[in-house]
Amino acid sequence: MPEVALYLDLLSPPCRAVYLFAKASKIPFKNNVVQLGKGEHLSEEFGKVNPLRKVPALKDGDFTMGESNAILLYLIRKFKTPDHWYPSDLQKRARVDEYLAWHVTTARPGTSKLFWLKAMTPYVTGHEVTPEKLNAALCEFKTISTTIQDVFLQDKPFLVGDEVSIADVVALADIGQVSKC
Amino acid sequence: MPEVALYLDLLSPPCRAVYLFAKASKIPFKNNVVQLGKGEHLSEEFGKVNPLRKVPALKDGDFTMGESNAILLYLIRKFKTPDHWYPSDLQKRARVDEYLAWHVTTARPGTSKLFWLKAMTPYVTGHEVTPEKLNAALCEFKTISTTIQDVFLQDKPFLVGDEVSIADVVALADIGQVSKC
Repeated sequence: MPEVALYLDLLSPPCRAVYLFAKASKIPFKNNVVQLGKGEHLSEEFGKVNPLRKVPALKDGDFTMGESNAILLYLIRKFKTPDHWYPSDLQKRARVDEYLAWHVTTARPGTSKLFWLKAMTPYVTGHEVTPEKLNAALCEFKTISTTIQDVFLQDKPFLVGDEVSIADVVALADIGQVSKC
Repeated sequence: MPEVALYLDLLSPPCRAVYLFAKASKIPFKNNVVQLGKGEHLSEEFGKVNPLRKVPALKDGDFTMGESNAILLYLIRKFKTPDHWYPSDLQKRARVDEYLAWHVTTARPGTSKLFWLKAMTPYVTGHEVTPEKLNAALCEFKTISTTIQDVFLQDKPFLVGDEVSIADVVALADIGQVSKC
Protein backbone atom coordinates (compact mmCIF):
# COMPACT_ATOMS: atom_id res chain seq x y z
CA MET A 1 0.00 0.00 0.00
CA PRO A 2 1.39 3.47 -0.87
CA GLU A 3 2.87 5.40 2.00
CA VAL A 4 1.28 8.44 3.63
CA ALA A 5 3.15 11.62 4.49
CA LEU A 6 3.42 12.57 8.14
CA TYR A 7 4.54 16.02 9.27
CA LEU A 8 6.23 15.73 12.63
CA ASP A 9 8.49 17.38 15.16
CA LEU A 10 9.46 14.62 17.58
CA LEU A 11 9.97 17.16 20.34
CA SER A 12 6.17 17.38 20.42
CA PRO A 13 4.42 14.61 22.43
CA PRO A 14 1.40 14.30 20.05
CA CYS A 15 3.88 13.89 17.18
CA ARG A 16 5.71 11.21 19.11
CA ALA A 17 2.43 9.36 19.69
CA VAL A 18 1.74 9.27 15.95
CA TYR A 19 5.35 8.33 15.13
CA LEU A 20 5.52 5.56 17.76
CA PHE A 21 2.24 4.08 16.60
CA ALA A 22 3.16 4.25 12.90
CA LYS A 23 6.51 2.58 13.61
CA ALA A 24 5.09 -0.07 15.97
CA SER A 25 2.35 -1.04 13.53
CA LYS A 26 4.65 -0.94 10.49
CA ILE A 27 2.66 1.70 8.63
CA PRO A 28 4.48 2.90 5.49
CA PHE A 29 5.08 6.64 5.88
CA LYS A 30 7.39 9.42 4.85
CA ASN A 31 8.50 11.55 7.78
CA ASN A 32 8.50 15.24 6.89
CA VAL A 33 10.28 17.06 9.68
CA VAL A 34 8.61 20.34 10.69
CA GLN A 35 10.84 22.09 13.21
CA LEU A 36 8.66 24.04 15.62
CA GLY A 37 11.69 25.78 17.09
CA LYS A 38 12.43 27.28 13.67
CA GLY A 39 8.79 28.24 13.11
CA GLU A 40 8.47 25.93 10.13
CA HIS A 41 4.85 25.17 11.11
CA LEU A 42 4.01 28.81 10.43
CA SER A 43 5.14 28.70 6.79
CA GLU A 44 2.73 29.20 3.92
CA GLU A 45 3.74 25.83 2.53
CA PHE A 46 2.86 23.97 5.72
CA GLY A 47 -0.39 25.96 5.94
CA LYS A 48 -1.54 24.08 2.83
CA VAL A 49 -1.17 20.81 4.75
CA ASN A 50 -2.71 22.06 8.00
CA PRO A 51 -4.31 25.53 8.00
CA LEU A 52 -4.26 25.37 11.82
CA ARG A 53 -0.44 25.43 11.55
CA LYS A 54 -0.04 22.58 14.02
CA VAL A 55 1.85 19.31 14.01
CA PRO A 56 1.30 16.44 13.64
CA ALA A 57 -0.36 16.57 10.25
CA LEU A 58 -1.01 13.94 7.60
CA LYS A 59 -1.20 14.00 3.81
CA ASP A 60 -2.60 11.05 1.91
CA GLY A 61 -2.89 11.88 -1.78
CA ASP A 62 -4.92 15.08 -1.91
CA PHE A 63 -6.35 14.54 1.57
CA THR A 64 -4.78 16.43 4.46
CA MET A 65 -5.66 16.55 8.15
CA GLY A 66 -4.43 17.49 11.60
CA GLU A 67 -5.04 16.54 15.26
CA SER A 68 -3.00 13.63 16.57
CA ASN A 69 -5.82 11.45 17.92
CA ALA A 70 -7.77 11.85 14.67
CA ILE A 71 -4.64 10.95 12.69
CA LEU A 72 -4.15 7.80 14.79
CA LEU A 73 -7.71 6.70 14.01
CA TYR A 74 -7.22 7.49 10.31
CA LEU A 75 -4.09 5.33 10.18
CA ILE A 76 -5.86 2.49 12.02
CA ARG A 77 -8.72 2.49 9.51
CA LYS A 78 -6.65 3.11 6.40
CA PHE A 79 -4.09 0.41 7.13
CA LYS A 80 -6.41 -2.00 8.98
CA THR A 81 -3.96 -2.42 11.86
CA PRO A 82 -4.33 -5.30 14.37
CA ASP A 83 -7.48 -5.10 16.47
CA HIS A 84 -5.74 -4.59 19.82
CA TRP A 85 -4.69 -1.04 18.91
CA TYR A 86 -8.35 0.05 18.82
CA PRO A 87 -10.44 -2.96 19.87
CA SER A 88 -13.65 -3.64 17.95
CA ASP A 89 -15.22 -4.84 21.20
CA LEU A 90 -17.80 -2.17 22.14
CA GLN A 91 -16.73 -1.69 25.74
CA LYS A 92 -12.98 -1.91 25.16
CA ARG A 93 -13.19 0.63 22.33
CA ALA A 94 -15.20 2.90 24.62
CA ARG A 95 -12.41 2.64 27.19
CA VAL A 96 -9.85 3.75 24.58
CA ASP A 97 -12.06 6.68 23.52
CA GLU A 98 -12.65 7.61 27.15
CA TYR A 99 -8.95 7.61 27.99
CA LEU A 100 -8.00 9.60 24.88
CA ALA A 101 -10.67 12.23 25.66
CA TRP A 102 -9.52 12.57 29.26
CA HIS A 103 -5.85 12.60 28.27
CA VAL A 104 -6.04 15.54 25.87
CA THR A 105 -7.97 17.79 28.24
CA THR A 106 -6.28 16.82 31.52
CA ALA A 107 -3.14 14.67 31.39
CA ARG A 108 -1.51 16.44 28.44
CA PRO A 109 -1.90 20.04 29.68
CA GLY A 110 -0.74 19.11 33.19
CA THR A 111 2.24 17.14 31.91
CA SER A 112 3.18 19.86 29.45
CA LYS A 113 3.07 22.51 32.16
CA LEU A 114 5.44 20.50 34.38
CA PHE A 115 7.83 19.86 31.49
CA TRP A 116 8.00 23.56 30.60
CA LEU A 117 8.47 24.75 34.18
CA LYS A 118 11.03 22.10 35.10
CA ALA A 119 13.01 21.74 31.88
CA MET A 120 12.25 24.27 29.17
CA THR A 121 11.99 27.52 31.12
CA PRO A 122 15.44 27.13 32.77
CA TYR A 123 16.87 26.06 29.39
CA VAL A 124 15.44 29.07 27.56
CA THR A 125 15.79 31.77 30.24
CA GLY A 126 18.77 30.49 32.22
CA HIS A 127 16.75 30.71 35.45
CA GLU A 128 14.86 28.16 37.51
CA VAL A 129 11.18 28.89 38.16
CA THR A 130 10.06 29.60 41.71
CA PRO A 131 9.63 26.56 44.01
CA GLU A 132 5.96 27.52 44.50
CA LYS A 133 5.24 27.29 40.77
CA LEU A 134 7.16 24.06 40.41
CA ASN A 135 5.52 22.46 43.43
CA ALA A 136 2.05 23.38 42.18
CA ALA A 137 2.83 21.75 38.82
CA LEU A 138 4.29 18.67 40.55
CA CYS A 139 1.17 18.42 42.70
CA GLU A 140 -1.06 18.62 39.61
CA PHE A 141 1.01 15.95 37.89
CA LYS A 142 0.82 13.71 40.94
CA THR A 143 -2.97 13.89 40.74
CA ILE A 144 -2.78 12.99 37.05
CA SER A 145 -0.51 9.99 37.61
CA THR A 146 -2.66 8.79 40.51
CA THR A 147 -5.75 9.02 38.29
CA ILE A 148 -4.04 7.07 35.53
CA GLN A 149 -3.07 4.38 38.03
CA ASP A 150 -6.25 4.15 40.11
CA VAL A 151 -9.00 4.96 37.60
CA PHE A 152 -7.65 3.85 34.24
CA LEU A 153 -4.81 1.34 34.62
CA GLN A 154 -5.87 -0.30 37.90
CA ASP A 155 -4.35 -3.81 38.02
CA LYS A 156 -4.25 -4.34 34.24
CA PRO A 157 -0.98 -4.52 32.28
CA PHE A 158 -2.28 -1.93 29.75
CA LEU A 159 -4.82 0.88 29.98
CA VAL A 160 -7.61 -1.10 28.34
CA GLY A 161 -6.77 -4.64 29.36
CA ASP A 162 -4.27 -7.34 28.47
CA GLU A 163 -3.11 -5.82 25.19
CA VAL A 164 -1.54 -2.54 24.15
CA SER A 165 -3.80 0.05 22.50
CA ILE A 166 -3.36 3.58 21.17
CA ALA A 167 -4.36 4.81 24.64
CA ASP A 168 -1.04 3.47 25.98
CA VAL A 169 0.92 5.06 23.13
CA VAL A 170 -0.68 8.46 23.71
CA ALA A 171 -0.09 8.21 27.47
CA LEU A 172 3.53 7.17 26.99
CA ALA A 173 4.30 10.03 24.60
CA ASP A 174 3.38 12.65 27.21
CA ILE A 175 4.11 10.97 30.53
CA GLY A 176 7.49 9.70 29.36
CA GLN A 177 8.91 13.19 29.09
CA VAL A 178 8.34 14.00 32.77
CA SER A 179 9.23 10.61 34.24
CA LYS A 180 12.37 12.06 35.84
CA CYS A 181 10.84 15.35 37.06
CA MET B 1 -33.51 -2.32 22.75
CA PRO B 2 -33.24 -1.63 26.52
CA GLU B 3 -32.52 1.95 27.46
CA VAL B 4 -29.22 3.21 28.81
CA ALA B 5 -28.88 5.55 31.77
CA LEU B 6 -27.38 8.98 31.14
CA TYR B 7 -26.22 11.22 33.97
CA LEU B 8 -26.58 14.84 32.90
CA ASP B 9 -26.75 18.46 33.99
CA LEU B 10 -28.05 20.34 30.99
CA LEU B 11 -26.28 23.51 32.17
CA SER B 12 -23.09 21.75 31.01
CA PRO B 13 -22.36 21.97 27.26
CA PRO B 14 -20.90 18.44 26.97
CA CYS B 15 -24.05 17.12 28.66
CA ARG B 16 -26.20 19.07 26.21
CA ALA B 17 -24.26 17.55 23.30
CA VAL B 18 -25.00 14.02 24.54
CA TYR B 19 -28.64 14.90 25.31
CA LEU B 20 -29.25 16.59 21.94
CA PHE B 21 -27.73 13.67 20.06
CA ALA B 22 -29.64 11.05 22.05
CA LYS B 23 -32.92 12.90 21.48
CA ALA B 24 -32.27 13.61 17.79
CA SER B 25 -31.37 10.02 17.05
CA LYS B 26 -34.20 8.58 19.19
CA ILE B 27 -31.93 6.62 21.51
CA PRO B 28 -33.86 5.13 24.44
CA PHE B 29 -32.38 6.57 27.62
CA LYS B 30 -33.24 7.45 31.19
CA ASN B 31 -32.09 10.94 32.15
CA ASN B 32 -30.60 10.99 35.64
CA VAL B 33 -30.19 14.63 36.60
CA VAL B 34 -26.91 15.38 38.40
CA GLN B 35 -26.99 18.99 39.57
CA LEU B 36 -23.47 20.38 39.48
CA GLY B 37 -24.57 23.49 41.39
CA LYS B 38 -25.58 21.29 44.32
CA GLY B 39 -22.38 19.25 44.13
CA GLU B 40 -24.25 16.05 43.31
CA HIS B 41 -21.39 14.95 41.03
CA LEU B 42 -19.17 14.78 44.11
CA SER B 43 -21.34 12.23 45.91
CA GLU B 44 -20.13 8.74 46.72
CA GLU B 45 -23.07 7.31 44.80
CA PHE B 46 -22.19 9.16 41.59
CA GLY B 47 -18.54 8.21 42.07
CA LYS B 48 -19.58 4.61 41.39
CA VAL B 49 -20.81 5.69 37.94
CA ASN B 50 -17.87 7.94 37.15
CA PRO B 51 -14.90 7.93 39.52
CA LEU B 52 -13.71 11.14 37.81
CA ARG B 53 -16.84 12.80 39.30
CA LYS B 54 -17.74 14.45 35.99
CA VAL B 55 -20.85 14.64 33.87
CA PRO B 56 -21.93 13.44 31.41
CA ALA B 57 -21.68 9.79 32.37
CA LEU B 58 -23.33 6.65 31.03
CA LYS B 59 -24.44 3.37 32.60
CA ASP B 60 -25.38 0.44 30.41
CA GLY B 61 -26.01 -2.62 32.56
CA ASP B 62 -22.85 -3.03 34.61
CA PHE B 63 -20.79 -0.91 32.23
CA THR B 64 -20.15 2.71 33.15
CA MET B 65 -18.13 5.42 31.43
CA GLY B 66 -17.51 9.15 31.20
CA GLU B 67 -16.22 11.74 28.67
CA SER B 68 -18.85 13.19 26.36
CA ASN B 69 -17.20 12.48 23.01
CA ALA B 70 -16.53 8.87 24.03
CA ILE B 71 -20.16 8.53 25.16
CA LEU B 72 -21.38 9.85 21.78
CA LEU B 73 -19.31 7.21 19.99
CA TYR B 74 -20.57 4.49 22.35
CA LEU B 75 -24.19 5.44 21.64
CA ILE B 76 -23.54 5.50 17.88
CA ARG B 77 -22.09 1.98 17.95
CA LYS B 78 -24.50 0.49 20.47
CA PHE B 79 -27.64 1.78 18.77
CA LYS B 80 -26.32 1.68 15.18
CA THR B 81 -27.53 5.21 14.44
CA PRO B 82 -27.78 6.51 10.85
CA ASP B 83 -24.45 6.79 9.08
CA HIS B 84 -24.46 10.58 8.70
CA TRP B 85 -23.87 11.12 12.43
CA TYR B 86 -20.42 9.49 12.16
CA PRO B 87 -19.86 8.69 8.47
CA SER B 88 -18.26 5.36 7.62
CA ASP B 89 -16.47 7.08 4.72
CA LEU B 90 -12.78 7.20 5.71
CA GLN B 91 -12.19 10.87 4.99
CA LYS B 92 -15.51 12.16 6.30
CA ARG B 93 -15.05 10.23 9.54
CA ALA B 94 -11.56 11.68 9.83
CA ARG B 95 -13.06 15.16 9.49
CA VAL B 96 -15.46 14.43 12.37
CA ASP B 97 -12.62 13.11 14.54
CA GLU B 98 -10.45 16.10 13.62
CA TYR B 99 -13.15 18.61 14.52
CA LEU B 100 -13.98 16.88 17.82
CA ALA B 101 -10.31 16.82 18.81
CA TRP B 102 -9.85 20.51 17.99
CA HIS B 103 -13.11 21.46 19.66
CA VAL B 104 -12.34 19.98 23.09
CA THR B 105 -8.88 21.54 23.35
CA THR B 106 -9.61 24.92 21.73
CA ALA B 107 -13.23 25.87 21.05
CA ARG B 108 -14.67 24.57 24.31
CA PRO B 109 -12.18 26.21 26.71
CA GLY B 110 -12.39 29.55 24.84
CA THR B 111 -16.18 29.48 24.72
CA SER B 112 -16.45 28.46 28.35
CA LYS B 113 -14.14 31.28 29.42
CA LEU B 114 -16.27 33.88 27.62
CA PHE B 115 -19.48 32.46 29.09
CA TRP B 116 -18.12 32.60 32.62
CA LEU B 117 -16.71 36.11 32.31
CA LYS B 118 -19.75 37.57 30.56
CA ALA B 119 -22.61 35.74 32.26
CA MET B 120 -21.68 33.64 35.27
CA THR B 121 -19.20 35.87 37.11
CA PRO B 122 -21.61 38.87 37.25
CA TYR B 123 -24.43 36.48 38.24
CA VAL B 124 -22.42 34.90 41.06
CA THR B 125 -20.49 37.93 42.34
CA GLY B 126 -22.84 40.78 41.43
CA HIS B 127 -20.00 42.56 39.59
CA GLU B 128 -19.03 42.82 35.94
CA VAL B 129 -15.50 41.71 35.06
CA THR B 130 -13.03 44.32 33.80
CA PRO B 131 -13.39 45.38 30.13
CA GLU B 132 -9.82 44.21 29.51
CA LYS B 133 -10.61 40.65 30.63
CA LEU B 134 -13.87 40.58 28.70
CA ASN B 135 -12.29 41.97 25.53
CA ALA B 136 -9.48 39.42 25.67
CA ALA B 137 -12.05 36.61 25.94
CA LEU B 138 -14.14 38.10 23.12
CA CYS B 139 -11.03 38.34 20.95
CA GLU B 140 -10.19 34.68 21.66
CA PHE B 141 -13.74 33.67 20.82
CA LYS B 142 -13.66 35.65 17.60
CA THR B 143 -10.58 33.67 16.54
CA ILE B 144 -12.42 30.45 17.39
CA SER B 145 -15.52 31.36 15.38
CA THR B 146 -13.40 32.51 12.43
CA THR B 147 -11.54 29.18 12.50
CA ILE B 148 -14.82 27.25 12.59
CA GLN B 149 -16.07 29.24 9.60
CA ASP B 150 -12.92 29.40 7.48
CA VAL B 151 -11.16 26.12 8.27
CA PHE B 152 -13.91 23.68 9.18
CA LEU B 153 -17.29 24.85 7.87
CA GLN B 154 -16.13 26.73 4.75
CA ASP B 155 -19.02 26.82 2.26
CA LYS B 156 -20.64 23.56 3.41
CA PRO B 157 -24.03 23.45 5.19
CA PHE B 158 -22.57 21.26 7.98
CA LEU B 159 -19.08 20.84 9.39
CA VAL B 160 -18.35 17.65 7.48
CA GLY B 161 -20.43 18.12 4.35
CA ASP B 162 -24.05 18.02 3.29
CA GLU B 163 -25.37 16.16 6.32
CA VAL B 164 -25.38 16.75 10.05
CA SER B 165 -22.84 14.84 12.17
CA ILE B 166 -21.93 14.70 15.84
CA ALA B 167 -19.34 17.41 15.10
CA ASP B 168 -22.21 19.88 14.54
CA VAL B 169 -23.97 18.77 17.73
CA VAL B 170 -20.83 19.22 19.82
CA ALA B 171 -20.17 22.63 18.23
CA LEU B 172 -23.75 23.77 18.80
CA ALA B 173 -23.78 22.74 22.45
CA ASP B 174 -20.88 25.08 23.26
CA ILE B 175 -21.16 27.88 20.71
CA GLY B 176 -24.91 28.25 21.26
CA GLN B 177 -24.42 29.49 24.81
CA VAL B 178 -22.33 32.50 23.78
CA SER B 179 -24.18 33.43 20.59
CA LYS B 180 -25.45 36.64 22.22
CA CYS B 181 -22.22 37.61 23.99
